[in-house]
Amino acid sequence: MKDRYVIGIDLGGTKISGAVANFEGDIIFKYTLPTKAEEGEKAVLDRIIAVVKKVIEESKLDKDAIVSIGIGSPGPLDAKEGKIITTPNLPFKNFNIVKPLVDEFHIPVYLDNDANVAAIGEYVFGAGKETNNMVFITVSTGIGGGAILNGKIYRGNTCNALEIGHMTLEKNGPRCNCGNYGCAEALASGTAIGKFAREVVEKGQKTSLSNYKNITSYEVFKEAENGDFEAQNILNTALHYLGISVSNVITSFDPEMVVIGGGVSKGGKIVFDKVNEVVKERCFKSMAKNTKIVPAALGTDAGVIGAVALALIESK
Amino acid sequence: MKDRYVIGIDLGGTKISGAVANFEGDIIFKYTLPTKAEEGEKAVLDRIIAVVKKVIEESKLDKDAIVSIGIGSPGPLDAKEGKIITTPNLPFKNFNIVKPLVDEFHIPVYLDNDANVAAIGEYVFGAGKETNNMVFITVSTGIGGGAILNGKIYRGNTCNALEIGHMTLEKNGPRCNCGNYGCAEALASGTAIGKFAREVVEKGQKTSLSNYKNITSYEVFKEAENGDFEAQNILNTALHYLGISVSNVITSFDPEMVVIGGGVSKGGKIVFDKVNEVVKERCFKSMAKNTKIVPAALGTDAGVIGAVALALIESK
Repeated sequence: MKDRYVIGIDLGGTKISGAVANFEGDIIFKYTLPTKAEEGEKAVLDRIIAVVKKVIEESKLDKDAIVSIGIGSPGPLDAKEGKIITTPNLPFKNFNIVKPLVDEFHIPVYLDNDANVAAIGEYVFGAGKETNNMVFITVSTGIGGGAILNGKIYRGNTCNALEIGHMTLEKNGPRCNCGNYGCAEALASGTAIGKFAREVVEKGQKTSLSNYKNITSYEVFKEAENGDFEAQNILNTALHYLGISVSNVITSFDPEMVVIGGGVSKGGKIVFDKVNEVVKERCFKSMAKNTKIVPAALGTDAGVIGAVALALIESK
Repeated sequence: MKDRYVIGIDLGGTKISGAVANFEGDIIFKYTLPTKAEEGEKAVLDRIIAVVKKVIEESKLDKDAIVSIGIGSPGPLDAKEGKIITTPNLPFKNFNIVKPLVDEFHIPVYLDNDANVAAIGEYVFGAGKETNNMVFITVSTGIGGGAILNGKIYRGNTCNALEIGHMTLEKNGPRCNCGNYGCAEALASGTAIGKFAREVVEKGQKTSLSNYKNITSYEVFKEAENGDFEAQNILNTALHYLGISVSNVITSFDPEMVVIGGGVSKGGKIVFDKVNEVVKERCFKSMAKNTKIVPAALGTDAGVIGAVALALIESK
């Protein structure tokens, strides 16, 4: 059979990246344009189309060899309908983004949210290759997730499955952006870690964190490593809650593997040691033993490779 | 096509119930024997075989019309291997219960745990008919669950998915039988409700609960309805945690429906009102709105009908 290719589009608030790749996930050509969300729906859509056209052109492939397009976008969105409902950093409101692309390029176009696309990327090309049940958790400004169950992406009834960051872990915990109290995201995200650190500094505690003007989770990890007690304390608590989140995911999904990505996962050993410790304490022994907890394997191009993987699994 | 039938076996610590049913779930003949677990593996297996033989005989069906057998058993078990690992009230230890039945009856035999079988029963014949993604939660002495995802039973990697009762909801909560602290089961099960009530009485609080020798969740529901403050308080707290469990399930699985069964669900309106209230507070609006929370529809014969449903879905 003739070689076949797909296009992956990573749609973000600051840039639109697109790539043509073969069925092994090798990128043939990649191209990026700024999003310029402030210019509105039509202008951003036009730039997405321009990116697709550019990668087709520059890949020098026969147009018939490209079989589908996958798009990863922030949500909430309706994957079945191909519609972006609304999202803070993009202009689209209840906007069907699939239809104009199908009309333009006459090949199937698939849309899914960032977290699902990242999960699919790790499943097809990354840490989760050769698993059958895998949960992906991203821990950065927020906490999100996606799952491959019985070998298929699991989206749920309204395409919102695996909103892991909004599991309640503390009945009377801190207020979350979603309006609820004590969500995992309000206790263990990068944003939460930064916030707790700023609170400690404001209270006038003795800590090397007070040397920074802007404290984010990055500084907390750094100072914890340098031996600062308050930074270690903040991390210890937040990572305990991350461990509880992962434990609850294991207890609910009984997956072969939990893949953790996002900025906080870059903390490395301290993050994975703590998560493993909590899982061992809190999960059934057999489940703790049988679930691998690993860092995401895809790097800088994770977004676009995930979108390629989405196009691939839907085209197979 | 000739009418086809299946056999369902509900294997419990006190009795073994079996039934022949048609593909619509109508029971043709049902028969029950005591388990007598103390007599050991061989004796209990013989009684299971006796139940199957009896229902075949009494149903007066052509033996070829019966296409498969489903068995629901307490876990943990290995559904794929057909093996009961161990379980408190049955003699089987790492015992393959499927093989001797296949050898005896020469038709496929399927095994699954109680909670999955109950989920399948509700999906095929009960409250979850016509759904595609459904989570079943049972709240009685323990809290367990099962899920139908994308129209199929989801078992997970080690057949332990949906161990909902062992999600951690309180980091430093009461000790659970599993060894962990603050599990849903230690906060919201019937056993937990009874325990909290006995603690209140032991503390000498003024409560009508002190009129009982044996306090279980049943008495707590009764006295709460009669207006007893302490009983209402205990229920309010426990049902809040049940609501958090259901919220976390909705946030993780985004199901069309959550079906709640088990003794505590018999509490009725007070249980479902509280669970709905908490879900509305804690879940994304769209998910809370799109998930129906309903009581289990199958009654006394739920175990055996679930086993029939297991045999059916595996035979289709």
